Amino acid sequence: MPAEQMLADGLIDRLGQAESSVKIKYGDQVYRSGHAIRNYHEAVADVMTELKDLGLVQHLHEIVGVGHRVVAGGEEFSESVVIDPQVLQDIRDLKDYAPLHNPVEAEYIDVFCKEMPWATQVAVFDTAFHQTMPAENFLYSIPHQYYEKYGARKYGAHGTSVRYVSQRAAEFLGRPLDQLKMIVMHLGSGSSVTAVQNGRSVDTSMGFTPVAGVTMGTRSGDIDPSLLQYLMRKLKITNFDDIITMLNQRSGLLGISELSADQRDLEAIEDEDPLAKLALDIYANRVAKYVGSYAALMNGVDVLVFTAGVGENAGARQGS
Amino acid sequence: MPAEQMLADGLIDRLGQAESSVKIKYGDQVYRSGHAIRNYHEAVADVMTELKDLGLVQHLHEIVGVGHRVVAGGEEFSESVVIDPQVLQDIRDLKDYAPLHNPVEAEYIDVFCKEMPWATQVAVFDTAFHQTMPAENFLYSIPHQYYEKYGARKYGAHGTSVRYVSQRAAEFLGRPLDQLKMIVMHLGSGSSVTAVQNGRSVDTSMGFTPVAGVTMGTRSGDIDPSLLQYLMRKLKITNFDDIITMLNQRSGLLGISELSADQRDLEAIEDEDPLAKLALDIYANRVAKYVGSYAALMNGVDVLVFTAGVGENAGARQGS
Repeated sequence: MPAEQMLADGLIDRLGQAESSVKIKYGDQVYRSGHAIRNYHEAVADVMTELKDLGLVQHLHEIVGVGHRVVAGGEEFSESVVIDPQVLQDIRDLKDYAPLHNPVEAEYIDVFCKEMPWATQVAVFDTAFHQTMPAENFLYSIPHQYYEKYGARKYGAHGTSVRYVSQRAAEFLGRPLDQLKMIVMHLGSGSSVTAVQNGRSVDTSMGFTPVAGVTMGTRSGDIDPSLLQYLMRKLKITNFDDIITMLNQRSGLLGISELSADQRDLEAIEDEDPLAKLALDIYANRVAKYVGSYAALMNGVDVLVFTAGVGENAGARQGS
Repeated sequence: MPAEQMLADGLIDRLGQAESSVKIKYGDQVYRSGHAIRNYHEAVADVMTELKDLGLVQHLHEIVGVGHRVVAGGEEFSESVVIDPQVLQDIRDLKDYAPLHNPVEAEYIDVFCKEMPWATQVAVFDTAFHQTMPAENFLYSIPHQYYEKYGARKYGAHGTSVRYVSQRAAEFLGRPLDQLKMIVMHLGSGSSVTAVQNGRSVDTSMGFTPVAGVTMGTRSGDIDPSLLQYLMRKLKITNFDDIITMLNQRSGLLGISELSADQRDLEAIEDEDPLAKLALDIYANRVAKYVGSYAALMNGVDVLVFTAGVGENAGARQGS
């Protein structure tokens, strides 16, 4: 693909629900399916039919590769891999690390492999780039057997983005990636900070899951676990899963501001609304502290890189 | 007390158990009680009797002041206070923040007030020094109402030590405390890192409780809360309190090394034992990262201060 041109992009949404849809954007046009999609097989079949009907391909055999983003690669996958039956099974087996994601991704991979057996299917893992972290950075200070038996460690996320962004930053600067100490801030609704030394991830703010690290749109980032015990008593919550849901869905900018998870909404009113300002200040504060900690870890920094999800973030807050 | 001379120090141990004792060290000698101590009143009475019998005071009226260390002072206490009935009640009411400590401390204070009504009783709070932290440092990124309703925030600890040590460090250097950016590392079986700017605590590594922050002897320091959810499933633990106990008592240097919570034990064998070395490396790593984060927070550092519990720590690890 010398032109690296995107012909179309799309989304399968609300699979299995009445209002499910397949949406494909191509050129200036948008296709939306008008019928319910009941399962993975129907979803993939619908996409394939439309690729032909919309004239995006003449024949499906023109498609020679399919890339699958997978959230959790555990310690098994330190880079992207061509999918075979064993890889697919491994992705299924890693479901403990991403119970909401890996099983669904495995289902889709399975359907694509069956529908397009001629195409090379590749799995790209969000965690893979961080597999270069040294043990002193990826281990928590808990009984070591929990790492050995259950893989209890920091895996990080956003790795696919951080790898690309660090390479592009070096290109922009015209400097060799393998001689740079870089801190990459991926700031979106999910945010992370990663220390990249000589092109390799050496530490990252997300943890065993993406709930840890800096303040995010709705996620808490780091927190004292004893506070969670205290809140369970105060709120009369008996199931710790409910606390994790709170930390994922009702915390972060949304929780502090009691208003919005979107930085743009908060910036629009921060002069009048003290909690909106507080949320933005805390966000900047947590990012800045991670940057400082990684500067110490690498004994200096050559490049600070800000990257933001398209449209979801106006860039790093001034002063952060 | 112009001479600031310690006449004796001692310990009431295992109160209410058969092997309970009162121990008083004075000069080169040690007194140990030979009888069981059943309650707070007996413990205090025994100490008072022995102070006279050992010749440390002629009469108890010579004692004009009693200082009581209290773990949790909440947001009510930002400095040491002379104890009156309201203060005593406040200390009891703060039991949610230190369930194992504040109620016991309140009992002792009550007995001392009754037994020595002529002496000034002062409460010294471990959290008080950190009450100068700004909100963007002491708040977690969770729903704001939990702070307003339940005081869910960072309180820190070791404040009594950090206040003293930062003052002494400025004296040693012959520089005015109120013009210094200082990072104080209190490294013992419990460890913390505090950013002290112009003599005031601006941020500290311990959190709502002393389980958070850097790796400690048996305490985990920071950890992804979702990992705790995962471990509860894997270990078939249904009570989150058991996880907090694990993080307090079986983690840290002890948990990683599977050997000892004492840095000296680990240093003695780190050349032969990879887990001992790993535990020390992780400890140094976490302290260094907090130092870096606070250097970023204060936009620089003038003084790094290491302080260690007497005899329990051979000083900061090289390279940390």
